[in-house]
Amino acid sequence: MTRIDDLPIRGELRGKSPYGAPQLDVPVQLNTNENPYALPEPLVARIAERVAEAARGLNRYPDRDAVELREGLAAYLTGTTGYEVTRRQVWAANGSNEVIQQLLQTFGGPGRTAIGFEPSYSMHALISRSTGTDWISGPRNEDFTIDVEAARRAVAELRPDVVFVCSPNNPTGTAVERDTVLALYEAAQEARAATGGALVVVDEAYVEFSHRPSLLPLLEGRPNLVVSRTMSKAFGAAGLRLGYLAADPAVVDAVQLVRLPYHLSAVTQATALAALEHTATLLGYVEQLKAERDKLVAELTAIGCEVTESDANFVQFGLFKDSHAAWQALLDRGVLVRDNGVPGRLRVTAGTPEENRAFLEAVREIIKEHSA
Amino acid sequence: MTRIDDLPIRGELRGKSPYGAPQLDVPVQLNTNENPYALPEPLVARIAERVAEAARGLNRYPDRDAVELREGLAAYLTGTTGYEVTRRQVWAANGSNEVIQQLLQTFGGPGRTAIGFEPSYSMHALISRSTGTDWISGPRNEDFTIDVEAARRAVAELRPDVVFVCSPNNPTGTAVERDTVLALYEAAQEARAATGGALVVVDEAYVEFSHRPSLLPLLEGRPNLVVSRTMSKAFGAAGLRLGYLAADPAVVDAVQLVRLPYHLSAVTQATALAALEHTATLLGYVEQLKAERDKLVAELTAIGCEVTESDANFVQFGLFKDSHAAWQALLDRGVLVRDNGVPGRLRVTAGTPEENRAFLEAVREIIKEHSA
Repeated sequence: MTRIDDLPIRGELRGKSPYGAPQLDVPVQLNTNENPYALPEPLVARIAERVAEAARGLNRYPDRDAVELREGLAAYLTGTTGYEVTRRQVWAANGSNEVIQQLLQTFGGPGRTAIGFEPSYSMHALISRSTGTDWISGPRNEDFTIDVEAARRAVAELRPDVVFVCSPNNPTGTAVERDTVLALYEAAQEARAATGGALVVVDEAYVEFSHRPSLLPLLEGRPNLVVSRTMSKAFGAAGLRLGYLAADPAVVDAVQLVRLPYHLSAVTQATALAALEHTATLLGYVEQLKAERDKLVAELTAIGCEVTESDANFVQFGLFKDSHAAWQALLDRGVLVRDNGVPGRLRVTAGTPEENRAFLEAVREIIKEHSA
Repeated sequence: MTRIDDLPIRGELRGKSPYGAPQLDVPVQLNTNENPYALPEPLVARIAERVAEAARGLNRYPDRDAVELREGLAAYLTGTTGYEVTRRQVWAANGSNEVIQQLLQTFGGPGRTAIGFEPSYSMHALISRSTGTDWISGPRNEDFTIDVEAARRAVAELRPDVVFVCSPNNPTGTAVERDTVLALYEAAQEARAATGGALVVVDEAYVEFSHRPSLLPLLEGRPNLVVSRTMSKAFGAAGLRLGYLAADPAVVDAVQLVRLPYHLSAVTQATALAALEHTATLLGYVEQLKAERDKLVAELTAIGCEVTESDANFVQFGLFKDSHAAWQALLDRGVLVRDNGVPGRLRVTAGTPEENRAFLEAVREIIKEHSA
């Protein structure tokens, strides 16, 4: 039998494992920050309708520029943030991972570097590596906020081509202050002034769950700033794989130099458009989840956990002697959470009230044995 | 206004344009090798049904490994070629372009080279470049077949890490002989014996339209061989973006080191599964198109064109003094064909009988003025 290492794969891939949380069949799945609420039936019907319409023309390539969808996403951003965004400022792809991949192919790549402040969304580092971009792991404070002065110094010294800021941050839930992003943007432009500046990507995958407003208005007058978004979380559509970005129209033009032609299928475009028609209902679920998230924070604190302040649909909690052992103990009780490799901590997604109750019950059972 | 070149994009992207045929609104569109037959209504209904089912679980991430879909694709390959393929030998992505991108990220990339025999499918070269893989343009004979000896010499001297063979070849329609592929495979393994061999990718996007059998059985005992396929053409589903490959299970394991997690949406998986249920009907359309293609070849020859032998759903024809002028003259008559940059030649997709009649009529009108 041939094994991977018998094949002529790239050296840096040898011995690596594919990225991905375990897909286990467990009663309470709170490990991948999915929205626990299934799409409402009227939306399911509308998706079927729009997809059938698209299927009648499926022998033709899809709209390569996804014009109608980008109009819809622009209207959503404008409507929810009050900052006017047009279609020419929006680009969409198969999940925000593909958005990030396209950005790194355009602005990163071999001979270039990207920085992120870790722990953060691990795909930033992984996609940097798979696009040949050198990765720099920047610092955070002990409370998981970004240490602005240390971050500025790192940017000034290391002169990265791409800077990732995840807000709210995954896996910690921490929102990033507007002034921090501004300071990093300025530092990054100054450090790379000779080469046209550096790209700063604010990953707002979870921003709809935040106590604070989106940083979208910062786009004004900042052509090297990108805000990335997804329909996986707030729109309850992780299965759809629809990520998008807002930025200067020139950035949208630039990623089209590397995007695979017709990357976004007609069924994906049709489904996303149907979901956008039901924005109000879906944002209603977001309000419920924010309340559930706040309740989780309060209850975990009451149990005696150390809880990281959260602006997302998940909560980081601890401290455990051995977070992997605690993860396993919860799994043994039918509750799947995420071990993101942050020492002593685990991450739980806000689920339905029932799921959260089951989770809290399991935590109460294991806390004494596993608490640090 | 910011322009692309004001941004800190990679140097090699400066001054480039996005890839893609013009999407023009013209009565007769025979430029992108689409299948002219819309999906039958029972299949449209089945797609709506399966997508609605998927939409009910859309808040969850899709099956990351697309197990059911890969089973279905393996069964299709086995059923149509007689060569048994299992799910573990099949991988799927958003169009064969994404399959090729994943292969190049795994087996190509910075410091590595890929070769193709041009003119051929231009995305092989473009995706090589966008993944940092150096591209070598290999030779063809004047009749557009591959010059086996010249190709072997090129492989032996240049020692590419990845070899692309497109059969039937796009844009010429030329099938590649089994022995040519075998000779190239052996030459490539020998040239890179010290580093575990080289990957040979046989792109069979159009193979269902061929007079000759698939080269799939060559996979036996050749772990560095990959056959890539698509549902865009024979399945009449260009809008679906579903490409796939068959290879040794180790190759499937290897591309998972670079694939974006959950790259294939639940709606894409559901739609593709529905289409596979209707394989027999769709392959019936393929038979019609083969007859139409053969008729196009005969009629173009009768008109006095030089026609390249075709095993695909398109035909390369000429000779024109100026192929772009001939392209424009056809467009002026409401017929959109493709100018692939092959001097003196154009490419026309086999359409419906009516479309083909309109095309042939337009050719008759322009031939005297534009013939070389």
